[in-house]
Order: sequence, then C-alpha cells, then structure tokens
Amino acid sequence: MAASWSELMLSKLVGRCNNFFQPGSSRAMCKPFLVDGQQVGWVWPGVEKHIQRFPDVFMVEEKQVSLCPSLQTYEERTARVQEVMLRLREEGDFIALKGWRDEMYDVFHQRSSPPVFRMERTATALLGVKQYGVHVNGYVEHPQKGPLMWIGRRAKNKSTYPNKLDQVTAGGFTAGLTVQEVLVKECAEEANIPQDIALTAQPAGAISYFYEDERGLFPEIQFVFDLKLPLDFQPVNTDGEVSEFYLWDMDKVKEQIAQPDFKPNCAMVVLDFLIRHGHVHPDQEPRYLQFLENLHKTLF
Amino acid sequence: MAASWSELMLSKLVGRCNNFFQPGSSRAMCKPFLVDGQQVGWVWPGVEKHIQRFPDVFMVEEKQVSLCPSLQTYEERTARVQEVMLRLREEGDFIALKGWRDEMYDVFHQRSSPPVFRMERTATALLGVKQYGVHVNGYVEHPQKGPLMWIGRRAKNKSTYPNKLDQVTAGGFTAGLTVQEVLVKECAEEANIPQDIALTAQPAGAISYFYEDERGLFPEIQFVFDLKLPLDFQPVNTDGEVSEFYLWDMDKVKEQIAQPDFKPNCAMVVLDFLIRHGHVHPDQEPRYLQFLENLHKTLF
Repeated sequence: MAASWSELMLSKLVGRCNNFFQPGSSRAMCKPFLVDGQQVGWVWPGVEKHIQRFPDVFMVEEKQVSLCPSLQTYEERTARVQEVMLRLREEGDFIALKGWRDEMYDVFHQRSSPPVFRMERTATALLGVKQYGVHVNGYVEHPQKGPLMWIGRRAKNKSTYPNKLDQVTAGGFTAGLTVQEVLVKECAEEANIPQDIALTAQPAGAISYFYEDERGLFPEIQFVFDLKLPLDFQPVNTDGEVSEFYLWDMDKVKEQIAQPDFKPNCAMVVLDFLIRHGHVHPDQEPRYLQFLENLHKTLF
Repeated sequence: MAASWSELMLSKLVGRCNNFFQPGSSRAMCKPFLVDGQQVGWVWPGVEKHIQRFPDVFMVEEKQVSLCPSLQTYEERTARVQEVMLRLREEGDFIALKGWRDEMYDVFHQRSSPPVFRMERTATALLGVKQYGVHVNGYVEHPQKGPLMWIGRRAKNKSTYPNKLDQVTAGGFTAGLTVQEVLVKECAEEANIPQDIALTAQPAGAISYFYEDERGLFPEIQFVFDLKLPLDFQPVNTDGEVSEFYLWDMDKVKEQIAQPDFKPNCAMVVLDFLIRHGHVHPDQEPRYLQFLENLHKTLF
C-alpha cells in the first residue's frame, strides 16, 4: 500500500529536515562550539581532528570546542578562522569546502546582538553554525480558483538541490544585511519582483530545524514571509537560478511538497503556510501536532 | 528605567510560561511518567512519595514511574487512577485537587492515536500530563480603524486567573470531543457566538509551552484559531465566566499582553497572532526569534 500524504510528509520532516535529532545521528559524538563561553555551533569528530591542529585558533577540550579566548575582536576572529578554512579547503578533505562561494556569513550569539565573527558561508556546516535565511511564499487570490501559489523549479546547474521545486524566492543572509534587505534582493534576483511589491510582503514568523548530510551540520532558521502578488504578475528569473515557475492551487501544492521532487526545507515553509492559512485542519490531519513540532525545533 | 515591551514580553514567556525549562525548576528532580513504555507525563518528588503507596497502580522505579503493566485496558486504568486521585483528594495535601471539576480528561501517547486512559482534569497537573485546549482570536476588520481584536476579562469568581484578560473564547478539552466540537461549544458558552459563525474560524496552528506552579506541572498545547467576526457582532457571555469584553486595536492589544493583567498563556496566543499577521517585524523586534522559540517548545 502506498504511504499516505501524512506519512510521507512526516517522514520528510523527521527523517530528512530534522535527522540530527534522530537515533544514529552524529549528535551524541558532537561537541558544542563556543565563542566567549556561549554556544554558537556544534563540532563533529571529523572536523575536530582537523581543527585541533590549529591550537592558536581553536581550543579543543574534552566536552567542548572554543574559539581561543586570545582572539578578542570580530576582525581577529574572522581573519584567523578564515586562514584555517582556506587551509582545509586546500587540503581537500571536506565536500562542503568544495562549494566555496566567497560569501561571508555572520555568526551570532543571538541575532539581536552584534555578530562575534564572520566566515565563509559553505564552511559554516563544519562548525554547525546556525544559518539564517528568508523564504517568501508568493501567492495570488484568484477570483474563481481561490488561492494559488507560485512555485519555482531550481536550475539544473545549481550546486545544491538542482532541478528541485522551491519557493518563488528564498535566500540566505550575507553579513550585514537586514531581513528586509535580503528579501528585496532575492525578490529582484530570483523572480524579478520589483521593490515596491516586495516591500508589501508580510512577515509571518520563522521555522527552525536541524539536519546533517555529507557536507556537515545545518541548524537553520528561515524567516517566513507571505507575498500576495498581483493576478497578472509573472515571475521571471534574472540570475539563472530558477528554470521555470508554476502557478498551482493549494491541493496540488500540498500534494507536491511531500514528494522527493520538492526541496525539503522549502516544503517545510509551504507546510507552515498551509497550516497558518487553514488549509490543514487538526481534526483531519493526524500528524498536525507532529508537523508543528518539527517546524519549530529548538536548535541549541 | 522602565523595562521595554520586548523585555517584559520575553520575561513573561520565559520566566512564567516556560519556567519548567529554567534553572531552579523541579525538572531535574522529576521522573518521566510512562504508560505502555511511552512517556505521557512527569512526576515530581512531592507526588512520587504519595503515589508509591499504591504499588498496584503506579510502579515507581529509580529513573521512571509507570502505570502498572497489569492494568491493560482504558477502563481499568481509568478506574484505578481515579481511586488514587480521590484518595489523595480526601487527604487534602494537594492544592490542585481542591479545584476538582468532575471533568474527565483523556491521556494520549499521541493525540492521533486512541487515549490510554482518562482522569480528572485538575489531577493531570500531578502527573504532568499534556493538556490540550482551543483558543480563538476573535477579530474584526474595521474599514477605518483596521484590524481590531475582542478581548475578554475573566470573571472575578473564576477559580483560575480571576479578573485577568483573555481571548474572546478558549477552553480545555473534555474526553471524546474533536477540536471543532470544543471550539463550537466554547464559542457558544463564553461569547454567544452562533455555530454558523464559529464554524468559519480558521485553524492557524498550535502553541506549546511548559510551566509549573504550586498546583503542579503544566505541559500545554493550545490549538489556535482565527475567527473574523462581523463588524456589528457583540460577544455576550452566557456561562458567567467572562465579566466584560473589549474591542481594541492591535497597538493596544500588543501593549496589554506584556502586562501582568493578561493571563499568560492567552498573551502567548495573541503574540502568535501578531507574529503570524505581520504586526511584529523581525527587523524591528530584537526578541523575534526568542518569542517564536518560546511559543513552540518541545514538551517531551
């Protein structure tokens, strides 16, 4: 018997998006990674054995790994971590570092306080540092067909999740930008959504989840926005990252997000939309509370 | 200097609604409470020493407390737990049992599977059993004033949180009812909202949090609904549980939920509404992610 939509969806949420919390994950072997005594990430054993060769940058102890307390400033920490990561990249042992993007990523204790250092985005997976992004649900209210959602298909040459289904636009943070600035930038680049429309997007919360794969650890938080687009608006990709856009009704969208074709974290963002907008009902969906639990994991 | 709204709100969420996760809580001294090998609650030391006098109902071990495996059926378990709770009520040692309601409450492994037994509602706090409820945000879209929300003030003679501010309607589950049935029942009883209007309420997720007080442990999950009411609708209390209703704009509502006058879990439900509807922006609210984390705790 084919698995039901509920079971497929739950399996994607638990077994894929939150696999770091599952039995058999590397969680039990990882050590907290601290800066100034506060955890900002996790270090897995494969990384630990490499970074302990740099004792003037990383202090490896029995139960934790810290950035050396001698590194006091944002600039010093950034420079020294970057040296280590460039060296590891040269040595070629880490898949994640082959995807080097020359894109700097801020590391925070709390996003509301100043960052403690910044590092190459692809390298964050080696230190299990929280990644933040902005995802936009682009939808229209069709007078006859009801709500419809724009879904993008990622380009075949994207380095991550090529050819998978995705939000109308989404993007990770680069150091120094506000949530709103990332939103406007990604709307323009990925879907040619003009700034005046992008600025009408409504913040609707955030989802959080933690997975691991062959590249490393991914504790992620995605700020979620709903953007009601004009009926006659046609998204057009301008940066080569999306190959096609579809406009689907909610039944089709719901069906698709449980399939392997849909990028897992983007499927979560859509599921959150469906729940917030009443397209999933607690009396009809046996996994309702488990879905919510997996959309809102406490990362550390 | 007066504390800011953000800090007052966060302090309510962390220090009150989720105090079970704070240092100094009884968490470290509590034992998981299991039925059929699966955790359904927590037992704190004050309760443990009493229930271990009933070894044919509760099996107290070093690291856990279980319902005796000899109790196999829903009926048997319900009857034997009830005997113990009635006995403890007679003995008069527990504040929670003074509020006995003669209202039976289902205990679940997962809400999607059949309940494993049922027990008096006020006694659930002694076994740290998850409590489920339904909260309804009643709002209107005023053509000039924008969105307004109905807020109730609880009656002065309510046994819990008398005279505090509250949702337009909210209620706990009684055994055997669906979410929708609880919603319709509470809408009628607390605010005289007719069934045809109540059924237009839109499910919008759930919040989860875990607090303790002098009565015991409260891991709670509240299903959240948004109900757009007609402009000329006036809620009227019919069961004596609400003394007054107010219709406030979002700025006033936001200001009030951080105050001690607002029932803590109801303040969380409103905060979740404000976040979902874009009345709080991640770039302007430094505690945005901490709010979300505290609205969605993993209970056990």
